Amino acid sequence: MRRSIATVSLSGTLEEKLRAAARAGFDGVEIFENDLVASPLAPREIRALASSLGLGIDLYQPFRDFGGVTEEQLAADLRRAEAKFALMVELGADTLLVCSNTAPDAIDDDALVAEQLYRLAEAARPYGVRIAYEALAWGTHVSTYGHTWDLVRRADHPGLGVCLDSFHVLSRGDDPAGIRDVPGDKIFFLQLADAPRMAMDVLQWSRHHRCFPGQGDFDLAAFTDHVLAAGYDGPLSLEVFNDVFRAADTGRTAADAHRSLALLEDAVLRRREENGDGAPEQLVRLPDPVPPRRFAFVEVAADTSATAEARAVLEALGFTHTRDHRSKPVELWEHGGTRILLNATDPRLGHTWDRAAAITAVGLDTDRPDRALERAGALSAPPLPRRRDPAETDLHAVAAPDGTAVFFCPDAGPGDQAWLDDFSAPAVHHPRDEAGPRLTGIDHIGLHQPFDQFDEAALFYRSVLGLSPSESTDLAAPDGLVRSRALVHRASGLRIALNVSVLGFGEHTRAAGGAQHIALGCEDVFAVAEAMRAHGRPPLRVPDNYYADLAARTDLAPATVERMRAHGVLYDRDPGTGAEFWHCYTPLLDGRLFFEVVQRGAGYEGFGARNTPVRMALHRAERDS
Amino acid sequence: MRRSIATVSLSGTLEEKLRAAARAGFDGVEIFENDLVASPLAPREIRALASSLGLGIDLYQPFRDFGGVTEEQLAADLRRAEAKFALMVELGADTLLVCSNTAPDAIDDDALVAEQLYRLAEAARPYGVRIAYEALAWGTHVSTYGHTWDLVRRADHPGLGVCLDSFHVLSRGDDPAGIRDVPGDKIFFLQLADAPRMAMDVLQWSRHHRCFPGQGDFDLAAFTDHVLAAGYDGPLSLEVFNDVFRAADTGRTAADAHRSLALLEDAVLRRREENGDGAPEQLVRLPDPVPPRRFAFVEVAADTSATAEARAVLEALGFTHTRDHRSKPVELWEHGGTRILLNATDPRLGHTWDRAAAITAVGLDTDRPDRALERAGALSAPPLPRRRDPAETDLHAVAAPDGTAVFFCPDAGPGDQAWLDDFSAPAVHHPRDEAGPRLTGIDHIGLHQPFDQFDEAALFYRSVLGLSPSESTDLAAPDGLVRSRALVHRASGLRIALNVSVLGFGEHTRAAGGAQHIALGCEDVFAVAEAMRAHGRPPLRVPDNYYADLAARTDLAPATVERMRAHGVLYDRDPGTGAEFWHCYTPLLDGRLFFEVVQRGAGYEGFGARNTPVRMALHRAERDS
Repeated sequence: MRRSIATVSLSGTLEEKLRAAARAGFDGVEIFENDLVASPLAPREIRALASSLGLGIDLYQPFRDFGGVTEEQLAADLRRAEAKFALMVELGADTLLVCSNTAPDAIDDDALVAEQLYRLAEAARPYGVRIAYEALAWGTHVSTYGHTWDLVRRADHPGLGVCLDSFHVLSRGDDPAGIRDVPGDKIFFLQLADAPRMAMDVLQWSRHHRCFPGQGDFDLAAFTDHVLAAGYDGPLSLEVFNDVFRAADTGRTAADAHRSLALLEDAVLRRREENGDGAPEQLVRLPDPVPPRRFAFVEVAADTSATAEARAVLEALGFTHTRDHRSKPVELWEHGGTRILLNATDPRLGHTWDRAAAITAVGLDTDRPDRALERAGALSAPPLPRRRDPAETDLHAVAAPDGTAVFFCPDAGPGDQAWLDDFSAPAVHHPRDEAGPRLTGIDHIGLHQPFDQFDEAALFYRSVLGLSPSESTDLAAPDGLVRSRALVHRASGLRIALNVSVLGFGEHTRAAGGAQHIALGCEDVFAVAEAMRAHGRPPLRVPDNYYADLAARTDLAPATVERMRAHGVLYDRDPGTGAEFWHCYTPLLDGRLFFEVVQRGAGYEGFGARNTPVRMALHRAERDS
Repeated sequence: MRRSIATVSLSGTLEEKLRAAARAGFDGVEIFENDLVASPLAPREIRALASSLGLGIDLYQPFRDFGGVTEEQLAADLRRAEAKFALMVELGADTLLVCSNTAPDAIDDDALVAEQLYRLAEAARPYGVRIAYEALAWGTHVSTYGHTWDLVRRADHPGLGVCLDSFHVLSRGDDPAGIRDVPGDKIFFLQLADAPRMAMDVLQWSRHHRCFPGQGDFDLAAFTDHVLAAGYDGPLSLEVFNDVFRAADTGRTAADAHRSLALLEDAVLRRREENGDGAPEQLVRLPDPVPPRRFAFVEVAADTSATAEARAVLEALGFTHTRDHRSKPVELWEHGGTRILLNATDPRLGHTWDRAAAITAVGLDTDRPDRALERAGALSAPPLPRRRDPAETDLHAVAAPDGTAVFFCPDAGPGDQAWLDDFSAPAVHHPRDEAGPRLTGIDHIGLHQPFDQFDEAALFYRSVLGLSPSESTDLAAPDGLVRSRALVHRASGLRIALNVSVLGFGEHTRAAGGAQHIALGCEDVFAVAEAMRAHGRPPLRVPDNYYADLAARTDLAPATVERMRAHGVLYDRDPGTGAEFWHCYTPLLDGRLFFEVVQRGAGYEGFGARNTPVRMALHRAERDS
């Protein structure tokens, strides 16, 4: 279907917004009046620019506080409207969004409102403009789509229809199924916005916290399905008031927005098929997700000074430096089937941060890398150009929003990865049954996100890799709140945790709270901790106060707590299931990167978030000391 | 009275919090358990550190979800409590905060809760610990102070009393007057927090948006008065959960906090005197505010390259370079009694920003500079050291939170300011009746604030200068939302507008949206705009679209709108009173600083905020071009 976006959803000047919308692949835009008023471009110039970019101007908005007014006010409103109609002719926009009246003194008289809407539509007719009437959730007397449809039906003017906005319908808890009863040709426009469920004033919720479909808690696939079932075939248009998007990079936000619509169309299509409904041919299907089976590798880049320490830590964790890349200064470190690439160059193209040690790439074993790449491409994640020797394996990769490269590795079973051929033959036979405690693989990775890319990143991993997002949790770091959200693939157990500074402010946007980490699974965290100590790299020391509190609030035996204290092991227990979790940390490498060793008791699905503020305080203290 | 602060109100590690609290002048702290748990310091070391800093540990907190539990749970809770009592002995803390139970399965049985509270207090007795029981506004069954007092009275244990928290009482709309009926010796602790009125879930409101007294909408003077009237003589303690403070500079926040308590004590004292109540002798009175009469000067610092353009703009605005400072490269520019200092050095000590042109100082004519300085000192704003020649005038100055120096100038009437003697005798006779349009003075200045100092800055100007804050307004800049708040002295008309990025993120924290400005009042904005054009520095050009919209939404005559368009004059009208406002802007100087020329119709009290997003977009486009 035609995809549009309201200019208010993006940051920047009107011209920047139009260019970004076009680049992201949108077919049209809604022009928000404030953007036009502040633009030095004349309406005809805006029309020409949009046209040259291949964008239609699908809507001009908003026309506020119309309907249910005195005759004197109506005269002023019609005069105001005529000026907008004339403007729209120059813009080449044929639909005007009219919002339900929010004035406290609006008159509660449906006959009057219908008559005034008729007069407005009649005034618009000579200009070739039609009126799309929308109920704001906080309208004084008109606040539901059902009411707007009653009024539109009553006014009965060919140039008058309703505009449906998913936020206004779903925020009120209205049943959207009734939309099916509205004739499709009387639905003049469809605005889509998702939102997290928040217990707050609906006006503030609407103005600050909307997000793109798939980033909030509303069922937009069902909503859109109802609208299409009614016969609507106009644009799917995003109108998202969001404080972060208003300040974020315009191009990134536009790509994020377009990805959300691709995902929504696909979801609607699948829903209709599941329900045995016919799927409109204009809905575009995405290639099926190709589930990742496991982490093939995680690549860490570090400056020369940090590389030596990284090697020591990897050794202490039980990894062996097994091979070297044939053409690049990249070392392969292995422990069983667990692989970490240590990159001493600086390939962090696309990374917007400083040069501290960082996770620069993750490899995922997948059955069909070509199909994974195809899906990613359909989700506005084009393939990364390979910087490689022609003789090397052609690995498919895309860039995540934070710049991390995501490689789709052909899954030929452990130990038989084709990409390993890019590395020298093993200097020593790879010690499959090495002595020492066993790591069971990469349990998860933790990636701190740039402030304005958190929702985008979650949608990216969810849609491109088919991961399921968990609830967000806010953690009190010593430098401010950090929001954390995990994305998990249930079948494979692949987990990625995303963190972000809640306010986009303060030191932790880059340092301790902003750390990245690789969490390694094991079957005996105490044995790993012991081995780390034996290698001169003991886990981060945890304060005695932590263990005193742990002993007070749990029924753990004193000897058990003492053993944890001696090894720097932290503990969590799921209050519902009683499932247990043990974990320990390394100090920060280069002020940015750390390793975690985790042992999951049966059924534990979390990440020990309760202990994260303690870890953050320790890493901060270490950094400052 | 004794002044305390909860460690959760500040950012950083426990040690940093203690040091900052002591430096700010607090007498004690509440230790928040999470801060202790994450600290490498043993409880005895914390006690020793606090003691060495002159801080008492007035409270240990929180002990959650106690009361109304099964006997089995009670046993676990008492075991947990005993561990905390033992810890408190080591800490030297004698009061434990116990919150009302928020567990969904808490038992609604007052007799049971009272009995369990009695048993807790009895268990605490051997440790010399007493229990302060607090109602959380979202407690499952116990959520009001009246209910806690009922339970405490019922339990009737000498070691059990109530803890009152202004947020929990006032957020629910409870009448605090009933506190007068609680015996003062059963009020074991008093926690103070203010908050802006917000229509949202009370738990989220409490956890994220509390602020220091005087920064929100609660009447804390009345609340505190009731508590003192009841006979309470313990600490006034700040417990403020605030997302910004959690990320802000620890020392600044502590100073801000201490200032708020000084102001609160003074307000309580005055309230009691007004009501004919006796004022407890432990309440400290502040020196009376010394109202500013007018801006004596505003000092602008600019690098050499920007100085030439600044001179051209000042000339175009009708200023004359009349004198030079005797010992510094500072020029005095005058227009009638309006004075701007142009500083070509870089005296921006204390400024945390970049080196773009900036307002570095404001001078205020005041009757008693010595008394103004004395009040500032009592409000944690110590005098700035003067960097001056011994022969120069001894001007009193303090630093505002953003580093702007605020000078208190002796008010000897216009044209007779002693500080002018620091400047060379006028080269030309100061042309009092110069030709050209007349400026009427400095209407206001606009200062963009560092993200974490907005509430602090408002409290600073309010308390130190005695200005009245207006409501905050959020404005949609092209780079994100900007929050704006004006502080006004009604009698003198002195106005300062503070702006801040709502999210502390994005370009506008430093650039266009982050601009500073000096607004000059006049009686004929068109004449000033014409003179600016004649001097080759016309006002910023405003888009035709703005005027088309203005014509559509107002009844202004077309010729009037055309005249505004021709001069780049923007327009606002107070919807209530019909009072009018006209203003125009200069381009940005050095990407940071601009001048505004304003003409106020009778009764107009605003700042043309409606037009600010247009101005921001224009300045941004200009910067990017």
